[in-house]
Amino acid sequence: MSDRLSIGVIGAGYWGPNLARNFRASPQWTLAAICDLDEQRAQRVADGIGGVAVTTRMDDLLTDPAIDAVAIATPARTHHAIVSAALAAGKHVIVEKPLADDRAKGAAMVRAAAERGLVLMADHTYCYTPAVLKIRELIEEGFLGRILFVDSVRINLGLVQPDIDVFWDLAPHDLSIMDFVLPGGLDVSSVSAHGSDPLLAGRSCLGHLVLELRAGVMAHVHVNWLSPTKIRQMVIGGTRRTLVWDDLNPQQRLSVYDRGIDLDAPAGGNGADPRAARVSYRLGDTWSPALPEREALAGVATEFAAAIAERRAPRTDGAAGLRVLSVLEAATRSVAAHGAPCAIRSEAPGSEPEPQPTEPDPTEEFQLS
Amino acid sequence: MSDRLSIGVIGAGYWGPNLARNFRASPQWTLAAICDLDEQRAQRVADGIGGVAVTTRMDDLLTDPAIDAVAIATPARTHHAIVSAALAAGKHVIVEKPLADDRAKGAAMVRAAAERGLVLMADHTYCYTPAVLKIRELIEEGFLGRILFVDSVRINLGLVQPDIDVFWDLAPHDLSIMDFVLPGGLDVSSVSAHGSDPLLAGRSCLGHLVLELRAGVMAHVHVNWLSPTKIRQMVIGGTRRTLVWDDLNPQQRLSVYDRGIDLDAPAGGNGADPRAARVSYRLGDTWSPALPEREALAGVATEFAAAIAERRAPRTDGAAGLRVLSVLEAATRSVAAHGAPCAIRSEAPGSEPEPQPTEPDPTEEFQLS
Amino acid sequence: MSDRLSIGVIGAGYWGPNLARNFRASPQWTLAAICDLDEQRAQRVADGIGGVAVTTRMDDLLTDPAIDAVAIATPARTHHAIVSAALAAGKHVIVEKPLADDRAKGAAMVRAAAERGLVLMADHTYCYTPAVLKIRELIEEGFLGRILFVDSVRINLGLVQPDIDVFWDLAPHDLSIMDFVLPGGLDVSSVSAHGSDPLLAGRSCLGHLVLELRAGVMAHVHVNWLSPTKIRQMVIGGTRRTLVWDDLNPQQRLSVYDRGIDLDAPAGGNGADPRAARVSYRLGDTWSPALPEREALAGVATEFAAAIAERRAPRTDGAAGLRVLSVLEAATRSVAAHGAPCAIRSEAPGSEPEPQPTEPDPTEEFQLS
Amino acid sequence: MSDRLSIGVIGAGYWGPNLARNFRASPQWTLAAICDLDEQRAQRVADGIGGVAVTTRMDDLLTDPAIDAVAIATPARTHHAIVSAALAAGKHVIVEKPLADDRAKGAAMVRAAAERGLVLMADHTYCYTPAVLKIRELIEEGFLGRILFVDSVRINLGLVQPDIDVFWDLAPHDLSIMDFVLPGGLDVSSVSAHGSDPLLAGRSCLGHLVLELRAGVMAHVHVNWLSPTKIRQMVIGGTRRTLVWDDLNPQQRLSVYDRGIDLDAPAGGNGADPRAARVSYRLGDTWSPALPEREALAGVATEFAAAIAERRAPRTDGAAGLRVLSVLEAATRSVAAHGAPCAIRSEAPGSEPEPQPTEPDPTEEFQLS
Repeated sequence: MSDRLSIGVIGAGYWGPNLARNFRASPQWTLAAICDLDEQRAQRVADGIGGVAVTTRMDDLLTDPAIDAVAIATPARTHHAIVSAALAAGKHVIVEKPLADDRAKGAAMVRAAAERGLVLMADHTYCYTPAVLKIRELIEEGFLGRILFVDSVRINLGLVQPDIDVFWDLAPHDLSIMDFVLPGGLDVSSVSAHGSDPLLAGRSCLGHLVLELRAGVMAHVHVNWLSPTKIRQMVIGGTRRTLVWDDLNPQQRLSVYDRGIDLDAPAGGNGADPRAARVSYRLGDTWSPALPEREALAGVATEFAAAIAERRAPRTDGAAGLRVLSVLEAATRSVAAHGAPCAIRSEAPGSEPEPQPTEPDPTEEFQLS
Repeated sequence: MSDRLSIGVIGAGYWGPNLARNFRASPQWTLAAICDLDEQRAQRVADGIGGVAVTTRMDDLLTDPAIDAVAIATPARTHHAIVSAALAAGKHVIVEKPLADDRAKGAAMVRAAAERGLVLMADHTYCYTPAVLKIRELIEEGFLGRILFVDSVRINLGLVQPDIDVFWDLAPHDLSIMDFVLPGGLDVSSVSAHGSDPLLAGRSCLGHLVLELRAGVMAHVHVNWLSPTKIRQMVIGGTRRTLVWDDLNPQQRLSVYDRGIDLDAPAGGNGADPRAARVSYRLGDTWSPALPEREALAGVATEFAAAIAERRAPRTDGAAGLRVLSVLEAATRSVAAHGAPCAIRSEAPGSEPEPQPTEPDPTEEFQLS
Repeated sequence: MSDRLSIGVIGAGYWGPNLARNFRASPQWTLAAICDLDEQRAQRVADGIGGVAVTTRMDDLLTDPAIDAVAIATPARTHHAIVSAALAAGKHVIVEKPLADDRAKGAAMVRAAAERGLVLMADHTYCYTPAVLKIRELIEEGFLGRILFVDSVRINLGLVQPDIDVFWDLAPHDLSIMDFVLPGGLDVSSVSAHGSDPLLAGRSCLGHLVLELRAGVMAHVHVNWLSPTKIRQMVIGGTRRTLVWDDLNPQQRLSVYDRGIDLDAPAGGNGADPRAARVSYRLGDTWSPALPEREALAGVATEFAAAIAERRAPRTDGAAGLRVLSVLEAATRSVAAHGAPCAIRSEAPGSEPEPQPTEPDPTEEFQLS
Repeated sequence: MSDRLSIGVIGAGYWGPNLARNFRASPQWTLAAICDLDEQRAQRVADGIGGVAVTTRMDDLLTDPAIDAVAIATPARTHHAIVSAALAAGKHVIVEKPLADDRAKGAAMVRAAAERGLVLMADHTYCYTPAVLKIRELIEEGFLGRILFVDSVRINLGLVQPDIDVFWDLAPHDLSIMDFVLPGGLDVSSVSAHGSDPLLAGRSCLGHLVLELRAGVMAHVHVNWLSPTKIRQMVIGGTRRTLVWDDLNPQQRLSVYDRGIDLDAPAGGNGADPRAARVSYRLGDTWSPALPEREALAGVATEFAAAIAERRAPRTDGAAGLRVLSVLEAATRSVAAHGAPCAIRSEAPGSEPEPQPTEPDPTEEFQLS
């Protein structure tokens, strides 16, 4: 027990209870307390997992020297203030997606963690699901060949969020997954975003995101709060095989198709029928790898502990969170420009991403006591 | 028998045999002849439907006074020359989609038909399927309410065409259907098209088309020749209900969902939780109307005959074909501009669509004898 | 709080935790204690729902005058002894399916409850799901017409049970549902059961049950522990409509098809083509009613409380449990007779079901302390 | 051309046109004529495939020395008379399923062919589909291991046949496929059949067939004319893998699951938890082999020609047809006995199947001219 790390969970709304339950069950962690401005809400979560302390004062956690880390599941606009305070108090931090509601704030958080030698982890939960781990492994092994395209659909009758649009609500999932599985990560040169608000809700309720990756790949993300049917599907086409991930089909989540088109040479000739010589079709087998049934957040907890213990960046670190924010910010600009493509500067290692400083926002809704 | 119209089919490749078979079986038509430069190909089609004359010389059809009309199923780049010749010979014309390979040529064809008082019909076959006819009827009756969005997916491992890209190959289906079922037709103010050619085939092999309709609706079309799975699905969201058309599910092609989100008032307030007051969710029944199993081309043949007899425009007339061409041309411009939105002038009735004349193209591959 | 009923849960294995959680959350109940021979197992369940007493001694519950009822989730072979003891102690009882491992024991339990004026409820959980409640309502309203056939499939890669075969393990679900939704209940005249044990596990691992209902309907149940795919589907055919319940499709659990065959008169004539005159096919719409997402066990807890308060039989009473046992016993006899049909005496109200007494079994594995 | 065989097709109703079309297209065959009592019907079929002679007199075919073989697609009750006449005239014969409407007649046909050294082939079309050929290959290679069970479902809203029940109409497909793919063929010791006629159509409209194979395997067939949904699915469970054939899913017709249960030893012990030691679960990958899209009847035509040329039995010979008839006759007996199991004598090679002779039936509806 003595070599366990100790953590407090801040925020007991939608996602916090899941974090609390998984840190409670993790062999690497002791769950010290749950913090929420609404004490009853915090108590309900604590009751559900058996006897954890509850507080409404975040400082109780930050000033407790026995606590090593905090897990933050509050609204995105409060992330910068809370994470900054936690880092200042010397705590390692894991924070729900998106990292912040603004790229500059996110960059400041990343710098602050680096300066203090603390771990700042983005809770990109999907990256710890058996399906996504398998996709990453298949791509790394070259099983799909060179990636040709990515298409992701994440639609259902969803909550119209009061403060963020459908891109900021849903696309962080797709973007963080792409960042995790694609060879060059989420290295995007240009973003076009087409949003629509047909109900006049005050923000895009459905939209399409088209990314030009520097690897020469076009990626597309379809997000929609107004769809009567629920689809969570990502297709990753490769020169050798194409993978379809249907997350709502527990009996066959991943299918890898040995089907595709092979071209012998680039087009351009003037022969009688250029197709005959150049195009051939593969119609091979389909294969669906077995996947363990395992809760992704358990893997998140383990990775967070390992990164702290080994003094290394976690697999989904602050930089990964920043790459997602860069795309979301460009998407917001593109929507404002009626879908015109917006460029993004490279964030490859070595390039200084965001030089200007930023001052902490006052957070009116989650007051620090 | 004497009051039947007489027709010749030009082109015996992929689509021509279907036209020939349906005009042969139609009670309104007599199939007079099949014309193709490849006589054996024409003969095989004639054999398959029993004893129809065959010719390699289009003039045999055009100069035959007993023939009232021609059905043209040749490559798009030959449409202008052949249709113009047929109209000049006084024949009514039905022509495979797209109407032409260029909007200006298409407009010239429409003008030529109008000047001669002849019917020029676009073979937008899908518009005569039981599913699309039902969709149009449901929208007209107001069953879906005001249209909020349209999303269409048409992907499979398809033929990489030698002369046209995936937008020109597949999107005419989606565009002609939207033109047919939407209250204002395909009245588009702006087109963004994102195409990708990851195999270096010389043209876009997959892409996304985003249309801003003047009715305030965003429509999206996803076309892909490289998908290992085959999907043909269109979703039309409305304020009252949302319709999903899954053309590959013969047991339930159309589903109408009484699910959606209702907002009491536009957003903008600063209340504690604006959602609570404003958003409500409907989770009602799903209904799947029975559809007859009927071949669409039989309806095409009937409508063509009726339009000629009643001296009226057919339901999918040349103007409908032009609206599709306008979007396709804008898509080509947008792809060239890396996805930047491209405006389209209104083609509502009364506005002169395309004033400049055009000269006929020499058609090297389908020579007129 | 004072008018709540108090309950103890006996058995903390697979099903007990669900009972505990739902009685804990029910506004009608106070969960007094959880009893299991394995104290740690009981404690884990108690921890998961927050601060409930734990005991390994069943007598602690039975002798506590503050406890009104017990919920029993122990192996079927222990039901008779435990239920008998609980009834003798004056407790109302709800017991997991099957009611007992033997019809005679079950009948003795029903008699004992009746003699003492106590409620004995069968936990036929499925009967409290929104889907089954809707099915019952549709049949009652005559929406399906006269019932023509029932077909139920319940297969997946399941646990090979150590003491009961696949019929006793899985078919109680299907049988209790039929009892609940069919107009005459599970009034069966004859049972044929075909079991197979191809792995030599010592008991049937897959099988087919064919029931002749006194209403003139054939019902079939397919159960299988060896299926790689999971199917839970019931089809109920009627003269007016046919209902398909696909429990694993949350997006469309119930589908009601207005499709079928109508015959004008019974067959028997010798005309040239008797079909032409007599058979017509309906191919009408499909309709899928919206269902609330609600946990069935909450409804079980409410019904149990209501039956106690109103001194009436619950909707799934001991007699319902007995009707299921009658079919299971006949199935066991039929399997032993290589599938020969086995008759069942009517259990309609008024007929004395099972006159002979039975002596309690010693239960070696769940010892009464 | 001179080494082609010549064939006539008898019967131009539902199935005959498919036979005609495929023999017409086959490189091994010349289609000489189509015979039907309804001349117009025959003519329509001939027109559809281009210029084949037509006759209403079967003797025209049987007395023509240039014709080598006949393909018979007339009602089952006429098979014995027509096949017998064709064999007497020295023609090789292929006959639609079922071979005859009575096992004794079928046996007489088999004997007659054997005595004359002619090929008598059962048109078990499914056995020539790519899916069934692949299933046979996988089982032969041992890919599934020892077969544990077979389950086949063939249901949809089907034609209520005027003269045969649903078992004789639909089950020949399932039975002939089992005969073709199972290691020991359709070697059945006992048949239980449960039929139901809830519409009083005069014959079973839905039913279940349970077969005990001599290999120790239980096979089940579910046939239904009253189902609003269409299912054609066969599951073949093996010790190593389980195969699911879903014939209505063109994108994944065959799925092979590396999932199952392994038992270390037969049950019977009395240990604390016998399961723990003995049962293990495999949850491996799923694999879906690519299948060519090929018309089965083309393979039928090729095999018929090869059997004639090589003077050997075809892969689906008369004996295969007889094994199917044995099961169907036993099913009829079982239905009459309310589902009681009915034994079948072994028809393994060497055992004389059916010694008693039979006299030809007068066939009133298909009169021989």
